[in-house]
Amino acid sequence: MTKTAAIIGGGVIGGGWLARFVLNGWDVRVFDPDPEAARKIDAVLANARRAFPMLYDTALPTEGNITFCDTIGDAVTGASWVQESVPERLDMKHAVYQEIAKSVVSAAIIGSSTSGFKPSELQDGMDCAAQLVVTHPFNPVYLLPLIELVPSAQNPTEIVDRAKTILTSLGLFPLHVRKEIDAHIADRFLEAVWREGLWLINDGIATTEEIDNAIRYGFGLRWAQMGLFETYRIAGGEAGMKHFIAQFGPCLKWPWTKLMDVPELTDELVDTIGAQSDDQADGKSIRELERLRDDNLVAMMRALKGQDSAAGALINTHEKSFRPTIDATQATPVVSANRIIPVDWTDYNGHMNESRYGQVFSDAADVMMSAVGADETYVANGHSFFTVDIHIQFIKETHAGDTISVQSQLLEAKGKKLRLHHRMLAADGTLLATGEQLLIHVSLETRRACEPQPELAENLATMAAAHAALPDPKQTRG
Amino acid sequence: MTKTAAIIGGGVIGGGWLARFVLNGWDVRVFDPDPEAARKIDAVLANARRAFPMLYDTALPTEGNITFCDTIGDAVTGASWVQESVPERLDMKHAVYQEIAKSVVSAAIIGSSTSGFKPSELQDGMDCAAQLVVTHPFNPVYLLPLIELVPSAQNPTEIVDRAKTILTSLGLFPLHVRKEIDAHIADRFLEAVWREGLWLINDGIATTEEIDNAIRYGFGLRWAQMGLFETYRIAGGEAGMKHFIAQFGPCLKWPWTKLMDVPELTDELVDTIGAQSDDQADGKSIRELERLRDDNLVAMMRALKGQDSAAGALINTHEKSFRPTIDATQATPVVSANRIIPVDWTDYNGHMNESRYGQVFSDAADVMMSAVGADETYVANGHSFFTVDIHIQFIKETHAGDTISVQSQLLEAKGKKLRLHHRMLAADGTLLATGEQLLIHVSLETRRACEPQPELAENLATMAAAHAALPDPKQTRG
Repeated sequence: MTKTAAIIGGGVIGGGWLARFVLNGWDVRVFDPDPEAARKIDAVLANARRAFPMLYDTALPTEGNITFCDTIGDAVTGASWVQESVPERLDMKHAVYQEIAKSVVSAAIIGSSTSGFKPSELQDGMDCAAQLVVTHPFNPVYLLPLIELVPSAQNPTEIVDRAKTILTSLGLFPLHVRKEIDAHIADRFLEAVWREGLWLINDGIATTEEIDNAIRYGFGLRWAQMGLFETYRIAGGEAGMKHFIAQFGPCLKWPWTKLMDVPELTDELVDTIGAQSDDQADGKSIRELERLRDDNLVAMMRALKGQDSAAGALINTHEKSFRPTIDATQATPVVSANRIIPVDWTDYNGHMNESRYGQVFSDAADVMMSAVGADETYVANGHSFFTVDIHIQFIKETHAGDTISVQSQLLEAKGKKLRLHHRMLAADGTLLATGEQLLIHVSLETRRACEPQPELAENLATMAAAHAALPDPKQTRG
Repeated sequence: MTKTAAIIGGGVIGGGWLARFVLNGWDVRVFDPDPEAARKIDAVLANARRAFPMLYDTALPTEGNITFCDTIGDAVTGASWVQESVPERLDMKHAVYQEIAKSVVSAAIIGSSTSGFKPSELQDGMDCAAQLVVTHPFNPVYLLPLIELVPSAQNPTEIVDRAKTILTSLGLFPLHVRKEIDAHIADRFLEAVWREGLWLINDGIATTEEIDNAIRYGFGLRWAQMGLFETYRIAGGEAGMKHFIAQFGPCLKWPWTKLMDVPELTDELVDTIGAQSDDQADGKSIRELERLRDDNLVAMMRALKGQDSAAGALINTHEKSFRPTIDATQATPVVSANRIIPVDWTDYNGHMNESRYGQVFSDAADVMMSAVGADETYVANGHSFFTVDIHIQFIKETHAGDTISVQSQLLEAKGKKLRLHHRMLAADGTLLATGEQLLIHVSLETRRACEPQPELAENLATMAAAHAALPDPKQTRG
């Protein structure tokens, strides 16, 4: 099999497919009659080249080559995969398939990005119908793994299996839709939500922003990691999924949505859902599922915290309301951290990763700097400290959920040079690690060392004088 | 205002509210006639105590006290906030409100967790109707920030404002629902999706697991950070939101969902949505929104990667297919890392955080260890290396999106002791940082130092011999 894909139609979706293939090392041949096609594809590819490799902790395969072709025939020649992403008009798609059929090799898979058409509608009257399946992606195609793979009765199993193998090799998740239906699976939900949203705006209940907030601060976070039914399985608790459905059965008749055409909640349907949910949980107890959900939510919300975006921005604001202030004039080590080890800092055994000790000390240094006036405003005004050297001694392991604190001491503050010593302690006072850090005061404009501003220099001198009386932290253990 | 809350009804939702209050330093008084209430609340509180503090990078306020009360009157006495979370039966809720009204102070806010009832239905015939609002939370209440705050015409502005202030102080996001409606906003979407899901199962199109995968590998990730309309604004591209709606207008008449009652897509409605979406974007271009979306997706998907769950588990599997293998017998430094700096490793200026240099070296050491046979299987069999000491020199800054590599050299392998030297290089070969690491071979059972297993010892000797011929890395710069 050649690693060559043909991209027919190069908009946001076609361009996203192109990026997936190219960044996974496939050569790509593109056909798009739009004179702006190359520019539009470049824009998508630039986003993809930036974001997609960031998902991985090792380099991707060498990028494939991109060739722009003047005809569909030229583009599909020699391709093992042909991806059609032309507008959602059946007549246009049929015309494109006729052209593809003339030049495509019989071993190639032809995937359609259609959001709504059933594969049998696409295959109707087509020469190589057995090769055509729906492979419906989600924007941005270069990041989101879902592909709805919808065959019809005309596709042999071999084609479906090969499509799954190729899609998986691109980092995608082929969801085999076993029975064709308008809009497949995901877009049926998207369309229902879209229609409900239009009503809410039409009736003046909510704005677009209010609706988005209702989604992203609540169930959107749940759905990003578990979806609908696994979430409700947890809500049902030990009583189980069938109990949950029975409890919410009566609501089906209430006007809680404009979707008022509902299936009869027969014993058979309830049994089916209960059994499918049991299979899906694969023996995990409600308590285990709760733990998994919470760990995923914590990790994702902390990821958004790092971006200061969506739910993460809310956490940052809330945190400011109870962050302690530090008195830099006391003759005691500064308590520069007091916190819990979160699940995104630990390995699969729950031990804190080695590098997070460094993060704890780096955060502790930030707190020390803030305390003497090298805070956000100081940095915004063009000066900061850069760490040039750190020496960490790992003394004891620590785990997710453990409370730790850090005691920091100023060892030396001479001109541009600053030396700090940090001691990381368990809740019972056990010494977990030490860090000795050398920092240099810099101008953020020149990126070079320079003297601290007068007020900062004065505060550093005050702290240095106070800390000079303290015992040498390097002699202190435990 | 006292920081005392009354929790009326202590199930999963009431228990979640209780945890939110207590972990934010409020005292809580609980009433729940269920003899199992204390046990159930303890279970929720145990989850909350574990997960909620992990969202923050500093310690939370001191926990409040919990008092179990025998009557509603006793529970609400002295409370500034009363949260009702009893079953969804209007008669039961009215009876509870009558009890609350007898003892509640007039300054207290009474919040109802109802999923479906309008506040005016709840207030009907109530003595202190002006104090009662809907405050509808989302499970798990101790993690998800959304609260739908729904007042009626009977609530003075002052009550609504105070409710917002208190909810925000708990780390929650009060979404003010300006016009009451059955099921508020979020649950209208949840109910539409639930009904659509029941049809898909009823008609044998998809199983619960297939539906969950259709959500969590695709639009669920988008919705966790942007919701519906901002996502579609991006999909509309430079042509804008109105163009997007016009394009998808015809689909509203197609059977893409069972929700077939749709509003007329008048010019007025399209204009309203376009204008609301413009307000929401707040001047950000499509390119900026794409960047924001991609950064959030990368950060969340990497968070799930760390948990080896949902979309993150797919990335881990894919990555294994192209991870390079290392030949440990060559007389060259080992290329122990080759990667891109992801956005979750950088500060708000896009510089890689100090602690991530340590992570790069720690990951590089893992690659070195794997190359000599101390791989996952070796660790699973009960032995590993622990880092006892690392010394990092920071030489140059590096940024999100930059490609870096690490060259690692074995300095010493003597019995239990192993010394490694790592050089982190930019794509052009510039030296960015060095790390010298001391590791000790340990038994994972005793957590104490011990000799490496024979095969590993032999491989280490081979690598040590090969690396002995290399120049001293500490003399090499750039």
